[in-house]
Amino acid sequence: MIYADNAATTKMSKAAVDAMTFHMNETYGNPSSLYTLGQRSKDVLDEARAAVAKVINAEPGEIIFTSGGSEADNQALLTAAAIGKEKGKMHMISTAFEHHAILHTLAKLEKEGFDVTLLDVGEKGIVTAEQVAEAIRDDTCLVTIMTANNEIGSIQPIREIGAVCREKGVLFHTDAVQAIAHIPVDVVADNIDMLSSSAHKYHGPKGSGFLYVKKGIKISNLIEGGAQERGKRAGTENVPGIAAMAAALTDTYSNMEKNAEVMSSMRDYIIAGLSEIPHSALNGDAERRLPGNINFCFEGIEGESLLLLLDDKGIAASSGSACTSGSLDPSHVLLAIGRVHDVAHGSLRLSIGEDITKDQADYIISSVKEVVEYLRSFSPIWRDLMEGKKEFIL
Amino acid sequence: MIYADNAATTKMSKAAVDAMTFHMNETYGNPSSLYTLGQRSKDVLDEARAAVAKVINAEPGEIIFTSGGSEADNQALLTAAAIGKEKGKMHMISTAFEHHAILHTLAKLEKEGFDVTLLDVGEKGIVTAEQVAEAIRDDTCLVTIMTANNEIGSIQPIREIGAVCREKGVLFHTDAVQAIAHIPVDVVADNIDMLSSSAHKYHGPKGSGFLYVKKGIKISNLIEGGAQERGKRAGTENVPGIAAMAAALTDTYSNMEKNAEVMSSMRDYIIAGLSEIPHSALNGDAERRLPGNINFCFEGIEGESLLLLLDDKGIAASSGSACTSGSLDPSHVLLAIGRVHDVAHGSLRLSIGEDITKDQADYIISSVKEVVEYLRSFSPIWRDLMEGKKEFIL
Repeated sequence: MIYADNAATTKMSKAAVDAMTFHMNETYGNPSSLYTLGQRSKDVLDEARAAVAKVINAEPGEIIFTSGGSEADNQALLTAAAIGKEKGKMHMISTAFEHHAILHTLAKLEKEGFDVTLLDVGEKGIVTAEQVAEAIRDDTCLVTIMTANNEIGSIQPIREIGAVCREKGVLFHTDAVQAIAHIPVDVVADNIDMLSSSAHKYHGPKGSGFLYVKKGIKISNLIEGGAQERGKRAGTENVPGIAAMAAALTDTYSNMEKNAEVMSSMRDYIIAGLSEIPHSALNGDAERRLPGNINFCFEGIEGESLLLLLDDKGIAASSGSACTSGSLDPSHVLLAIGRVHDVAHGSLRLSIGEDITKDQADYIISSVKEVVEYLRSFSPIWRDLMEGKKEFIL
Repeated sequence: MIYADNAATTKMSKAAVDAMTFHMNETYGNPSSLYTLGQRSKDVLDEARAAVAKVINAEPGEIIFTSGGSEADNQALLTAAAIGKEKGKMHMISTAFEHHAILHTLAKLEKEGFDVTLLDVGEKGIVTAEQVAEAIRDDTCLVTIMTANNEIGSIQPIREIGAVCREKGVLFHTDAVQAIAHIPVDVVADNIDMLSSSAHKYHGPKGSGFLYVKKGIKISNLIEGGAQERGKRAGTENVPGIAAMAAALTDTYSNMEKNAEVMSSMRDYIIAGLSEIPHSALNGDAERRLPGNINFCFEGIEGESLLLLLDDKGIAASSGSACTSGSLDPSHVLLAIGRVHDVAHGSLRLSIGEDITKDQADYIISSVKEVVEYLRSFSPIWRDLMEGKKEFIL
C-alpha cells in the first residue's frame, strides 16, 4: 500500500512507538503524586515539555499539553475571547479556509456577541499581512490564521502577519497543526502569541497535542477540574502519549530539512505528472506549499469514486480534510479559493510522506491518470462537456 | 513496591497494552477516511463503542469518546446547562464532595447565572435520595452526583437518586470515574441520563475516557471542529487509546466480582489493622465503600510526611486526590464529611488493587503504624495533645 494521506494522520515513528511502549509499561504513576513513581512521571512530563518547547523556540512553561489540535484551537480562541471580552474588544479576524476547529468555534463566539471577519484567501490560498493590517480595528482582540492549509498546503506569511499583530497590540494565534515539524516555525521570530499542534501529524500518537501560549497571556480553561498543567488544563496527564509526542516531534524535526527536500522534489514530480491530465488544475500555490501536499481538481468526476478506485489500486488518498469526510458538501477550502461546486467535487489530495520512492510516485501518477480517464468514460458531466453542452471551467 | 494508589491511576493491564501496541502499529488510518485503512480504524472504533456500551448497559450510539473523565464531566455539565438555559431552568444540584471537574465547572456556571445547591454528605459521606427530592425545584435542570467518592470511597445511592430525578423530569448525571468496572453500574436500571468514565482508573490508558448520554438528549460540544463522534466531539479519534480502553474495561469488568471479593476482604483487613492506631478514624462509610478504598485520619501528623516515609518503605499511597496534590489546602472531601482542618491534614488514602496479597497488607499495616508513631514522636501538635494542652478530636 502507498499511504498518501499523511495530512489526515501519520503512522507513528519507531521513536514514538518505543516511547509509548516504555512509558505505558513503566511510567504509570500519576504525575501529581508525591511518591517516587509519581515524581518519575512528572520528570517525564518536564522532559517532554522542554523538548516540545525547544522545537518551536518557546519556553517549557509556555506549553500546555492537550488531547490534540482541535482542543488546542478551542482553548486558544476561548482564551482570546475572555481577554477580549474583559477589554470590550469583541472583534476577531480569521480566514475563510481555516480548519473547522477554528471556524466552528468562531461561529459559536459570534452567537456570544463577537464580530468575526473572515479574510479572502485569493485563488492561490494565501492571505497577506496587508489584508490583516487593513482588517484590524480598534476592537480587534484576535487574529487567527493557520500556518499552512490542511487541504491545499498553502503556507501563510505568518511572520509578517505576526509582526502586524504585534505592532497593533492584537493577539495572534496560528493553527500550526499541518506545519510543525514539516516547515520551520519559531514562535519568537514569527511573533506568535498562541499556537496549536497535534502529535499525530508528525508521526506521534493520536490523542496528544499542545497549545503554546506566550508568557503573560491569561489562559482560560476549556476543561475545568484538577490542578494539572498549572491549573489550565484539567485531567490526569497522558504521560505515555505526551512522551511519545515529544519523541516523535524531536525525531521528525531533526530530519525536517532532509525530509522536506525529498518530499518537495517528489511532490513537484507528481504535480508535473498529474498536470498532464487534461482539464485538471493544481489547487493552492505551487511554490509556497507544504513539502508533501498535492491537491488537484479534475473536471467531470466525483472525488469519492476516485478515492475508492485508488484504494483498489492500493493508494490511500483523500479528497480533502478527513475531518469533514462525512459531509456531502464540497470542501470549504476549495470554495474559498474560488473553485465552483462542480469542480470542487472532483478533488484529490495526496499528502506524501518522507519515505516516498520514485517508483511509488510513478505508480501514483499512472494510477490517477488511469482512474480519472476511466471515471470520465462514463461520466454524464464529462459527456456534456465533450459534446459542448457545457463549458469547461478548467 | 506496593502500589496502593489505584484511585489516582492504575497500571495498564496486559489486555490494554496489547491492544495499544497492536493498534498503534497497525491501525493508524484516520477513521474518517474512505480507504480501507481508514475504514479498518472505523471498525475498531465501532467495536470499542459496542464493548464499552455493553458494560454499562447502554447502546453504542449513546457513547461519546473523550480524552478522559474530566472532559466528560465538563461536557455533561455544559450539555445540561444548555438544555436548562433553553428551558429557563437555571438550578443545578450536586454535593460538596464532588471531583473538581464538577465543582469548578459548576462554579463557572454560577458566574453565568446558574444557581447551584451543594447537598450535605453527612459524616459517612453519603447523600440520600430524600435530600435530592427535597432540593429539586421547578427550575432544576440537573442533578450531578458521583457514583462513588474518589477519596473516601463512599458509594452513593445513585439508583434511588436517579429514580427521583426521572420522576421529577430532571436530568441526572453521575461521575462514575471511580466506580466503572469496580462496582456494578447499569445506566438503565440506575436511571442515569449522563455518565462519565476514565480509562486509566480500570487499567486502561491515560488520555481516554467516555461520556454516556441517553438517547434523545441534545448534546453540546465542548470541543468544536470536525464531524467526529457524530459531530459532538471534534478531533481525530485516538483509535489505539480507545481500543485499549475497551480492552481494559472488558477485561477488568469480567473479573469485577472476583476482584471485589479479594479487594474488599483485604480492605477490611487493613482497616481493622489501622484502626488499632490510637486517635485514628476511618473516613467514609465502612460498608458502602469501594472494594479497594481505605482512608484514615491520624491525629497529630502531616499527611505529606506520612506519604514520603511510606514511599521510602516502598509503599505508594496518597493523602487524597492526586488532582489536588499541588494544593496546600486540606481535602475538600474530608472537610465535607466534617473533619476539621488539623485532622484532615493528617489523612492517608490507600487504594489497593486486585493483586494485593496478605503479606503486602500486613506490611502496609505495620509500616503505617511505625511511620505514624515515628512522626508523632516529634510532632509539636501531638505533644500538646499528650500534655493535655489541646484536646483530642479523634
